[in-house]
Amino acid sequence: MSNHEKRNGVKLFALNSNPKLAEAIAQVVGVELSKARIDRFADGEISVHIEESIRGDDVYLIQSTNDPSNDYLMELLIMIDALRRASAESINVVMPYYGYGRQDRKPGPREAITAKVVANMLTQAGIDRLITMELHAPQIQGFFDIPVDHLSATALFANHFLAAGLIGEETVVVSPDHDGVKRAREMAELLDSPLAIIDRRLYQENKPNTYDLVGEVAGKNCILFDDILDTAKTVSKSTQSLKKAGAKDVYVCVTHAVLSGKAVERLNKSGVKKVVVTNTIDLSKKNASDLIEQLSVAPIFGDAIKRIQNYESIKPLFDMQYVKKLMEK
Amino acid sequence: MSNHEKRNGVKLFALNSNPKLAEAIAQVVGVELSKARIDRFADGEISVHIEESIRGDDVYLIQSTNDPSNDYLMELLIMIDALRRASAESINVVMPYYGYGRQDRKPGPREAITAKVVANMLTQAGIDRLITMELHAPQIQGFFDIPVDHLSATALFANHFLAAGLIGEETVVVSPDHDGVKRAREMAELLDSPLAIIDRRLYQENKPNTYDLVGEVAGKNCILFDDILDTAKTVSKSTQSLKKAGAKDVYVCVTHAVLSGKAVERLNKSGVKKVVVTNTIDLSKKNASDLIEQLSVAPIFGDAIKRIQNYESIKPLFDMQYVKKLMEK
Amino acid sequence: MSNHEKRNGVKLFALNSNPKLAEAIAQVVGVELSKARIDRFADGEISVHIEESIRGDDVYLIQSTNDPSNDYLMELLIMIDALRRASAESINVVMPYYGYGRQDRKPGPREAITAKVVANMLTQAGIDRLITMELHAPQIQGFFDIPVDHLSATALFANHFLAAGLIGEETVVVSPDHDGVKRAREMAELLDSPLAIIDRRLYQENKPNTYDLVGEVAGKNCILFDDILDTAKTVSKSTQSLKKAGAKDVYVCVTHAVLSGKAVERLNKSGVKKVVVTNTIDLSKKNASDLIEQLSVAPIFGDAIKRIQNYESIKPLFDMQYVKKLMEK
Amino acid sequence: MSNHEKRNGVKLFALNSNPKLAEAIAQVVGVELSKARIDRFADGEISVHIEESIRGDDVYLIQSTNDPSNDYLMELLIMIDALRRASAESINVVMPYYGYGRQDRKPGPREAITAKVVANMLTQAGIDRLITMELHAPQIQGFFDIPVDHLSATALFANHFLAAGLIGEETVVVSPDHDGVKRAREMAELLDSPLAIIDRRLYQENKPNTYDLVGEVAGKNCILFDDILDTAKTVSKSTQSLKKAGAKDVYVCVTHAVLSGKAVERLNKSGVKKVVVTNTIDLSKKNASDLIEQLSVAPIFGDAIKRIQNYESIKPLFDMQYVKKLMEK
Amino acid sequence: MSNHEKRNGVKLFALNSNPKLAEAIAQVVGVELSKARIDRFADGEISVHIEESIRGDDVYLIQSTNDPSNDYLMELLIMIDALRRASAESINVVMPYYGYGRQDRKPGPREAITAKVVANMLTQAGIDRLITMELHAPQIQGFFDIPVDHLSATALFANHFLAAGLIGEETVVVSPDHDGVKRAREMAELLDSPLAIIDRRLYQENKPNTYDLVGEVAGKNCILFDDILDTAKTVSKSTQSLKKAGAKDVYVCVTHAVLSGKAVERLNKSGVKKVVVTNTIDLSKKNASDLIEQLSVAPIFGDAIKRIQNYESIKPLFDMQYVKKLMEK
Amino acid sequence: MSNHEKRNGVKLFALNSNPKLAEAIAQVVGVELSKARIDRFADGEISVHIEESIRGDDVYLIQSTNDPSNDYLMELLIMIDALRRASAESINVVMPYYGYGRQDRKPGPREAITAKVVANMLTQAGIDRLITMELHAPQIQGFFDIPVDHLSATALFANHFLAAGLIGEETVVVSPDHDGVKRAREMAELLDSPLAIIDRRLYQENKPNTYDLVGEVAGKNCILFDDILDTAKTVSKSTQSLKKAGAKDVYVCVTHAVLSGKAVERLNKSGVKKVVVTNTIDLSKKNASDLIEQLSVAPIFGDAIKRIQNYESIKPLFDMQYVKKLMEK
Repeated sequence: MSNHEKRNGVKLFALNSNPKLAEAIAQVVGVELSKARIDRFADGEISVHIEESIRGDDVYLIQSTNDPSNDYLMELLIMIDALRRASAESINVVMPYYGYGRQDRKPGPREAITAKVVANMLTQAGIDRLITMELHAPQIQGFFDIPVDHLSATALFANHFLAAGLIGEETVVVSPDHDGVKRAREMAELLDSPLAIIDRRLYQENKPNTYDLVGEVAGKNCILFDDILDTAKTVSKSTQSLKKAGAKDVYVCVTHAVLSGKAVERLNKSGVKKVVVTNTIDLSKKNASDLIEQLSVAPIFGDAIKRIQNYESIKPLFDMQYVKKLMEK
Repeated sequence: MSNHEKRNGVKLFALNSNPKLAEAIAQVVGVELSKARIDRFADGEISVHIEESIRGDDVYLIQSTNDPSNDYLMELLIMIDALRRASAESINVVMPYYGYGRQDRKPGPREAITAKVVANMLTQAGIDRLITMELHAPQIQGFFDIPVDHLSATALFANHFLAAGLIGEETVVVSPDHDGVKRAREMAELLDSPLAIIDRRLYQENKPNTYDLVGEVAGKNCILFDDILDTAKTVSKSTQSLKKAGAKDVYVCVTHAVLSGKAVERLNKSGVKKVVVTNTIDLSKKNASDLIEQLSVAPIFGDAIKRIQNYESIKPLFDMQYVKKLMEK
Repeated sequence: MSNHEKRNGVKLFALNSNPKLAEAIAQVVGVELSKARIDRFADGEISVHIEESIRGDDVYLIQSTNDPSNDYLMELLIMIDALRRASAESINVVMPYYGYGRQDRKPGPREAITAKVVANMLTQAGIDRLITMELHAPQIQGFFDIPVDHLSATALFANHFLAAGLIGEETVVVSPDHDGVKRAREMAELLDSPLAIIDRRLYQENKPNTYDLVGEVAGKNCILFDDILDTAKTVSKSTQSLKKAGAKDVYVCVTHAVLSGKAVERLNKSGVKKVVVTNTIDLSKKNASDLIEQLSVAPIFGDAIKRIQNYESIKPLFDMQYVKKLMEK
Repeated sequence: MSNHEKRNGVKLFALNSNPKLAEAIAQVVGVELSKARIDRFADGEISVHIEESIRGDDVYLIQSTNDPSNDYLMELLIMIDALRRASAESINVVMPYYGYGRQDRKPGPREAITAKVVANMLTQAGIDRLITMELHAPQIQGFFDIPVDHLSATALFANHFLAAGLIGEETVVVSPDHDGVKRAREMAELLDSPLAIIDRRLYQENKPNTYDLVGEVAGKNCILFDDILDTAKTVSKSTQSLKKAGAKDVYVCVTHAVLSGKAVERLNKSGVKKVVVTNTIDLSKKNASDLIEQLSVAPIFGDAIKRIQNYESIKPLFDMQYVKKLMEK
Repeated sequence: MSNHEKRNGVKLFALNSNPKLAEAIAQVVGVELSKARIDRFADGEISVHIEESIRGDDVYLIQSTNDPSNDYLMELLIMIDALRRASAESINVVMPYYGYGRQDRKPGPREAITAKVVANMLTQAGIDRLITMELHAPQIQGFFDIPVDHLSATALFANHFLAAGLIGEETVVVSPDHDGVKRAREMAELLDSPLAIIDRRLYQENKPNTYDLVGEVAGKNCILFDDILDTAKTVSKSTQSLKKAGAKDVYVCVTHAVLSGKAVERLNKSGVKKVVVTNTIDLSKKNASDLIEQLSVAPIFGDAIKRIQNYESIKPLFDMQYVKKLMEK
Repeated sequence: MSNHEKRNGVKLFALNSNPKLAEAIAQVVGVELSKARIDRFADGEISVHIEESIRGDDVYLIQSTNDPSNDYLMELLIMIDALRRASAESINVVMPYYGYGRQDRKPGPREAITAKVVANMLTQAGIDRLITMELHAPQIQGFFDIPVDHLSATALFANHFLAAGLIGEETVVVSPDHDGVKRAREMAELLDSPLAIIDRRLYQENKPNTYDLVGEVAGKNCILFDDILDTAKTVSKSTQSLKKAGAKDVYVCVTHAVLSGKAVERLNKSGVKKVVVTNTIDLSKKNASDLIEQLSVAPIFGDAIKRIQNYESIKPLFDMQYVKKLMEK
């Protein structure tokens, strides 16, 4: 005996945050999900049990870190420790939604940059790669020194709106605040549509926030485009502003459907026509609503994993035509 | 201006796990708790706000990591990030109860050593020192390369039993399993009492665990001594064994009162005379019981902080006489 | 002899990028610049010679990394090595302009995040703190795990425009692109003025970029506000758009006057009324122009150093009134 | 030429501590030991010379760190440096006996955790994996963040005693102190025998240590089971206690035969029937004795290496039946 | 799909310092240079664009760090960042000339060890291997903990002089200073010639340097052998000393032709017969001279890359016969 | 209580290699040596016990790493671990003789750079500073990134020879090989004497080494000057060459008296007049000889420690006059 007799295999594991998506990704990749069990002791401590050998394998861990973020993060870190000690060849974290991503800067004196805390935890736990989607700020890639494959749902959404005929001059892509203008501009480009911006002003104490519209929407369909839909307050207020300015139908389109608190209730009352989201976050029962339409990111993540294993570029995953074909498979 | 005009001060912060203990420690140290606010957003993400400058200060963060461990751990890590970025001179974590401490070895193939995961997180977040009590295994100190001040409640308990007259040949210190024999032996030494051991055997599938007694207890009072009281199953079974062997009163004495699930209910039914614990973990209302007596570790942690700030040895904190005086203050 | 006989002193060093600013900062701090010599060998290699002992001192190195960025960066790194080996107590880098800051994300596949490369270099060279101003993206703070004191020139500029009467409804603050909207919004807030945005669209090949205006400027004075003024192309085109839309006077206001290539020529032809910049970058002779007015950041950096040495919060440096007083000294 | 033309090979090197065991392991693996020379200069400094190319190979270094521990450790570290610089694909340390393992906690104030010092040295020297046997405390695995394959000789010994008929109720497994109870309990399980414990009490000054027996041994054969046999003092005293309590034959069974000082002399006088050890430590001539029977761990380490190279789980190596077959080969 | 479908390929990239050499190396290796573009923005900042996927490839970056050293170094570091983020399997830096190598020690108090600064930069940027030639001091290898393949041009030069008949007792190898005696001794060995030394004394202030000859050169041809030819001052003065001592023809032979300032002018006036150098540094037009003869190191670097990819020892590259064959291909 | 009540003190510890020198250094510093005990267990393992609190103190550990190097190194590393865990403010290693210093480069393929292994061990153990003397190569300073105070005995020796009248043209400083020419040149400078070199050629197999003299020594006193005196073979042969060339008296002068094997015997037979060494290495009884004169480096190390504690430059320690005064105290 002299050499490694077998090459490294690929193994996908689902942790607790989004097993349905993990299942769908595995199907795209063409493998079964590998077996692991996550237990909680009586006192809430987590333990993980990997139920098949992963020596020498390229392992992909699928876990979003939405609410309960701390538990999902800890599951991930414990799993990484177990994999590393059990001699995985590489540990690749597939994190469709990167929790704590909005804490990407110091908002005030003596505050934390928690998105970096998370990045440091992952790096220092010994992962080899992060595969994620639509980070709140693209600079978060720079919080890592390992490879980050930063995927996008924009082509997915664009194909969807194209199929729905929501394109061209009759549709306006709207950014709900200043931070997201660049993202909205990209979508407007793909749909060949104009851009508008909600000039959201946050007054800290004495007066209410304002949601002034900058741009023309009268008589047009609007797509409010953002990365995260959390409490739905901004989206509701923005929809009011758009309606007041004469907008026809208002569509909300976001990658990550956090939907916390009374978000769905607010959406139902807001007058939006449709809310198009992806399944990076598992939609809980409480958040079921006819208003919400979910597009699956499994074809994108699955194809990315295949490309990574085959040492191929992931560039095509940003191409509308290529993504369209993936969606049809 | 040429030199630092002021020396570094000492600041204590309480996070959410045990504010009452933090308050008591601050009183011993002779300072007010410093002000910080920990918020949770609608989606459960934590953010911290330190409400006074800590530039150049020696900061002590008081936080146990009992249930919900992951949230308490994350509070701590975010706080550490904020403090480091805000130019604290040193960051000292006071962790009366070190959660995940029982996962201190690989229990089986492909499992994690989560106590090390926690140690790595704390170290890499940039803390300067850990002050903790009664680690599940003393080897956990070796999981760190920074100074760990590892305190003990044994002298506290010994003083308590001494005052209660539970000493000498008429009392037997009992270890509820093989792992804790060394700890029980130390207590027996202090009380000048004999030792007994519960030979607990865990059968994985087919037969029930057994709790055979090794040693003599007939007609004597027993002190079942351990580090953690979690579900109280072992303690209940052990008490039965002791009673069956003719023990008089059975006292349970543990440092960390985790008390999860139906622990208190079990204790109430178990026939134990008294359960003596410390306040390293805040006793929730659900766990209130006349059976339980809490000794405060605040004098020990407070004195430790004073000694550390004065560059004095913490050795006296292991001495029964010295601890007795601290308790009387 | 038993203890350190003297406390650590504070020493400021100027490297080659901006000795005039360094001189002015030293004056505010109230110390002489310490002596160091930077030589270049015949083959262009740099060497540094620190000409006084700095054992046990808190050292501040003042260096912007504008053009020639690589040389200025290397000067800094060599100096840091020399200081660390010579037993400085702390090494604090004062970098008024952080070069390579615009490469803060991966612009395309297989590209670098050079702002992170720079951050890693500084961190690994062993610095204790970075003091900088108006980073291109605030997330760059998260590229570091050491304290970053991130200062702003906004209060400085606001005081300037306030004195010039350029405030209220008659003035519009304009962001020259989508990335800078947040920054412009903050200035608008301070001046109590409305906001407009240049909807700059970059077409990669076939058509020219467009600079559409979103917002109302007719009959009003405009302040085009940005962090960096490099080739002045965007500013020139934006000024044309504003003029076409009926703007009165157009003021350009930027923190960092990079002014490369034909920037000044372009500004001279652009029709702008005034260009207000700071001295974070030394204005070369070639870039002298009556159009340009320089505000000094020395009072801000100097006061920051004093506060850091005195372990005081730097929060007041963001307050208009406080900054006004500093400017008057 | 475009790709790596050959796969990585496996190379085993013996350092100076136990060449006979290394030879036997190589035979099991089915390779020749690779050639290296370890020289000592006149002043005692060590130098290593690797006499064949190991570029791209998976290298296994076989070295126990028994007496002279410091020399054997240094040989190992110098060899690792040479291998890393010479482009080994992976460096795997096979350390049948992990010296300094008993210093796994802080025994008193201001003492070292030397087992961690050793772990840090190995990790930082750049090894990829540690393969070791019967660590003094299982927590030492947590001193590493790299994979540790922690083997056991328990199944080896159990097979031996099974063959010798030393099983069931007529045999008692005895732990010579409180620390080893868990280990003895595992052996008792395998042999289906009862357990007894020596309640060893160490009095620091005034009185001699005591070795009281807890459990029943009258008329039975005893197996004193421990991890390390060093000075043989404890074992001798324990044997006396067992004999006094009516034990029939006393067998001593330990994994690591350190046997320092007058250990063998003591064993000869102690009245033990047989001393069963492994060859993790090479038995020096001075320690030759008819009393001692050595079982070879080569089949276990050899099979582990083959499994690691084949990316197979090492779990079977803990199974009595599997180990029995390995022993018979 | 289960395993990596393709093996890692080998890709060579030329950065800006020496594209001709890179081209020649690629030819020896038998591959095309891969495509990358290095741009400079108007303000001098560098950006790199890798124009083909390198996922899973073994990448070799060819870059000397001669003048402008800081720019060439920064190109390299930015490229490494881009490659690492783009998932290269390994990053190998081929640095024929290691700039800043002469700053390999602290020349005086409070000075830097810049050769170590460079080593740290490369290591921390994440390279896997350095392939370089004739480091100013062999100890620089110890500045790295990664593999360094340290090649030599000595066999190349020796073959050259052998072909020219400059060997044996009629030729003297001369070291131009004390530091290079060892290097000159090696060449003398290969040519079977005697050795002489220039006893260069540097007086810091009051008197001129002296260049006394130690050894016999009357009537003999001299080869002044050194690693770096920078300003040519030492070489000119040494030639004068040799001529004065009766030397016949003086040949200058150096690996790295830095040739800064008026070096070529000085050489032209110096009376040397021939200057034999390699092409580790690209000879700029300004430095063209009939006096200078360039030997190509491409066969050596190319063969080294092939051997590394084939996991073969690079030892033959130090053998005169083997190098002769390489030169003839 | 709010601030650190006391400043950090200075504590010196002697380990086992050279307690006499440690005692002398402590006297110069003006403190008592602090108390620590180094034990060896029966099996040769080392343990350390620090017998007084060192919380917050600046600790200096005095230990040369001569034969037995591995034991002395391990003592040091264990002590460092204990000090770090016991909260020393800073750990400063005073290593008068740096063992393994001659392994400062890769002498051949697949060999180690053991001087770097030692540097890595010290750095990673967490020391703050190294104070050492006459490193075999000055580049070893670059093996560290922490401050290294690199002292010299040259001024000490020069004062000694000055007092003995061994100066000027009647004395020749001789380097015993090519590596040491620079060192000898410095001494020649101080004594105002000429230089000679032994052209030592090492033939690997077929012929004996040669020791040809380059330079003039007839009728003059010679000082053979080197850093290390190990087996004395080179010195003996060199003395023969000098005598044959007509030298008067030959003095051997070396900093580190390793003196291994039959070194003293060889010196006695060699015809040297005197051997002047320092006490960086403790002269064992076996090495006592009337020929050998020892100069104490205690004044230099002691003064260095005082200067470091007082934050003063150590530059004067290289000045002959200043050192003369230290010697006279």
